[in-house]
Amino acid sequence: MVTRKTNPETARRTTRDTRGRAAALNALYAQSGGVTAVINASAAAVIETARRHPSRIDRLYAGRNGIVGVLEEDLIDTGRESAAAIAALRHTPGGAFGSCRYKLGDPERDRARYERLLAVFRAHRIGYFFYNGGNDSADTCLKVAQLGGALDWPLRVIHVPKTIDNDLPLTDCCPGYGSVARYVAVSTREASLDVRSMASTSTRVFVLEVMGRHAGWIAAAAALAGDRRLPLPLVILLPEVPFDAARFLAAVRERVAQHGYCTVVASEGVQTADGRFLADSGATDAFGHAQLGGVAPLLAATVKRELGVKVHWATADYLQRSARHLAAGVDLAHSLAVGKAAVELALQGHSAVMPTIVRVRQRPYAWRIGTAALRDVANVERKLPPEYIDPGGFGISARGRAYLAPLITGEVRTPTVDGLPQYAQLKLVAVRRRLPGFKA
Amino acid sequence: MVTRKTNPETARRTTRDTRGRAAALNALYAQSGGVTAVINASAAAVIETARRHPSRIDRLYAGRNGIVGVLEEDLIDTGRESAAAIAALRHTPGGAFGSCRYKLGDPERDRARYERLLAVFRAHRIGYFFYNGGNDSADTCLKVAQLGGALDWPLRVIHVPKTIDNDLPLTDCCPGYGSVARYVAVSTREASLDVRSMASTSTRVFVLEVMGRHAGWIAAAAALAGDRRLPLPLVILLPEVPFDAARFLAAVRERVAQHGYCTVVASEGVQTADGRFLADSGATDAFGHAQLGGVAPLLAATVKRELGVKVHWATADYLQRSARHLAAGVDLAHSLAVGKAAVELALQGHSAVMPTIVRVRQRPYAWRIGTAALRDVANVERKLPPEYIDPGGFGISARGRAYLAPLITGEVRTPTVDGLPQYAQLKLVAVRRRLPGFKA
Repeated sequence: MVTRKTNPETARRTTRDTRGRAAALNALYAQSGGVTAVINASAAAVIETARRHPSRIDRLYAGRNGIVGVLEEDLIDTGRESAAAIAALRHTPGGAFGSCRYKLGDPERDRARYERLLAVFRAHRIGYFFYNGGNDSADTCLKVAQLGGALDWPLRVIHVPKTIDNDLPLTDCCPGYGSVARYVAVSTREASLDVRSMASTSTRVFVLEVMGRHAGWIAAAAALAGDRRLPLPLVILLPEVPFDAARFLAAVRERVAQHGYCTVVASEGVQTADGRFLADSGATDAFGHAQLGGVAPLLAATVKRELGVKVHWATADYLQRSARHLAAGVDLAHSLAVGKAAVELALQGHSAVMPTIVRVRQRPYAWRIGTAALRDVANVERKLPPEYIDPGGFGISARGRAYLAPLITGEVRTPTVDGLPQYAQLKLVAVRRRLPGFKA
Repeated sequence: MVTRKTNPETARRTTRDTRGRAAALNALYAQSGGVTAVINASAAAVIETARRHPSRIDRLYAGRNGIVGVLEEDLIDTGRESAAAIAALRHTPGGAFGSCRYKLGDPERDRARYERLLAVFRAHRIGYFFYNGGNDSADTCLKVAQLGGALDWPLRVIHVPKTIDNDLPLTDCCPGYGSVARYVAVSTREASLDVRSMASTSTRVFVLEVMGRHAGWIAAAAALAGDRRLPLPLVILLPEVPFDAARFLAAVRERVAQHGYCTVVASEGVQTADGRFLADSGATDAFGHAQLGGVAPLLAATVKRELGVKVHWATADYLQRSARHLAAGVDLAHSLAVGKAAVELALQGHSAVMPTIVRVRQRPYAWRIGTAALRDVANVERKLPPEYIDPGGFGISARGRAYLAPLITGEVRTPTVDGLPQYAQLKLVAVRRRLPGFKA
């Protein structure tokens, strides 16, 4: 056992000696893909839960920059971090151990990398692998679990779900989504009041671009900004609804005529009926260079040109998924719970599974942790279902609202000093290498 | 007197009868220009302070959509709003009574409008005019005060300062600035952690565009995101420092080489040495239509092309100035104080003045309210002083940091229901018109 003593080496050896049995296996945690405002909460829960089982899990390592660090044997000893630092991960955005965009291919064709992974696992006595990510990492988890079984190494692989895109199947929602949804809903509400107050002589239309390349979950959350108490003239553009410029302009024109202003919230993945992304429509700068895409400026220019009104636009990009200061309490609780459940599932002997969020009751919202087999999760992308979309195509239905509303609830505080949030300060001490070098 | 009784008409008449003297004059409040996260706090303070002086101020009206509503005699009776609704203005973003972009010209050339203003003031017995805005409205205040004096109407005109741009002279800072500064500092800190965790395999540079067409105060606040405890590789682009593409790229390259990533925070007003705005460099979309400007996508494309690294960008636009959920407590206190002081100055007989913020002590920060004559304020724009800018040109100096740091401090809560902020619900009851129509 390690972790809470000042000198882990001594502590570990002592425990072993007294109990007079072989050391427990080590565990490995890694973050994958785009980070969320609360992915580190899952990390905290994995680490804290592992620390409560010193007789089963000896050391818990983290891959530096995700699976890349695992492949390159660049591991971090989480046992060197204080309990306070680990607890502070709850309110620290980004990926505290580093994440990566790195997809492992098919084991048949990418054999060298899988073998390297297994070699690292063996060299560091890794018996538990917790991989915190979205669709791609679920797929990687499954392959690693299968390979581990084939190679007769006692490996238990648990996928810890995380994605702002909310597109994993078999779970009611994905940890990370509730917080970005809250960011979008709150920002849309705030900015709409701004536009409303300026509309008589200035800006009449505000366009906000949010993430969601393939599914409209994030943009859909903007619908929560308006409610019976505060109705807002919103036009929401989802990738699930083919973009039609004429219908879009008519919807904006109608809202401006009726309310004096309109807020447009567009998913970056908005596309025309022929499957072309609006953002890829080939804008160039003054020198003829291709511009980085952007749905918001494109829509803003269209509205300005066609409706002749003043338009402002914003693109939230990373701000939305790093906004820990606006995290939803429910989302934080989910993120902690899947981290804890991952370790417990592994200790119960499960592998190639993922803890899920199960909605138990709608109002008041209640949930519990469930389990899904990774073979049913990997590479399945859950889009916004048609019944969640308003028939008009520019908003969400009552069912969609009922689904979304509980996910953005719950206030959570961030400790601040002089107005600025304070984050976990990790030592990120490297584990001594045991293998020859390898370039991921 | 009005305001706190259920039937203001009766209450007002009764007061008059008992005291046996002529009714007090009425007052008028109006919001001007781009709104801030806390302009409504000033409105709350003006209204609440006026209500404490019923023998001096009878009714307090608000111009609907600012001075446009005044010109068009579209006035709102704030006396019809409950004390709770007025108190809730403290945490309501946008301009609760509507604002406008509308500049009154020179009284000589724009005589009809000034005469109309005075006619509205006379018709509604307006003896006090509180105008809540930035440079333009300070100028309007001064002209109205002068005209009122010339036309022998007992009018006291007080400018209530407000601008996210922080560019009014003779005040240590402008109410509204501290909150946008906090938004920029917190967002930059959060997003930097996001980029840092992705940089090994994905995005290395993140560009955030913030407001500030003529002065770099808002962009400068990003420097607070990094500190000794959490050093961040930032490049800040200010309008005060001529943009040089080669120097900019070298600064980004150096930070990426040293830290693995870099966060660029650019003022929308960044310009080249010849005074050309970067955002106006004439980008067109695929159809040859001019794009709405945007410094962030332009810089992102430049970095991507020249340094060959993956770049993400965000444009905060209205999100930054409507983000009441991130308001700075100090800024809220300033906004309340200038509103209260405005009414008190008027009651003391002052006119053509503006309450100011005076910094009394640096650490711990202490301040008090001062006064400035509008003839010294109007049309003077305060830029970021050279001594606040880091010699390298991409950050702020220790003096700049010392100035900025206290302004983003102080936590303030927003009441929320189901994760969403709750705002003042005003009745906005119109005052009966007494004059012929007028088109502003």
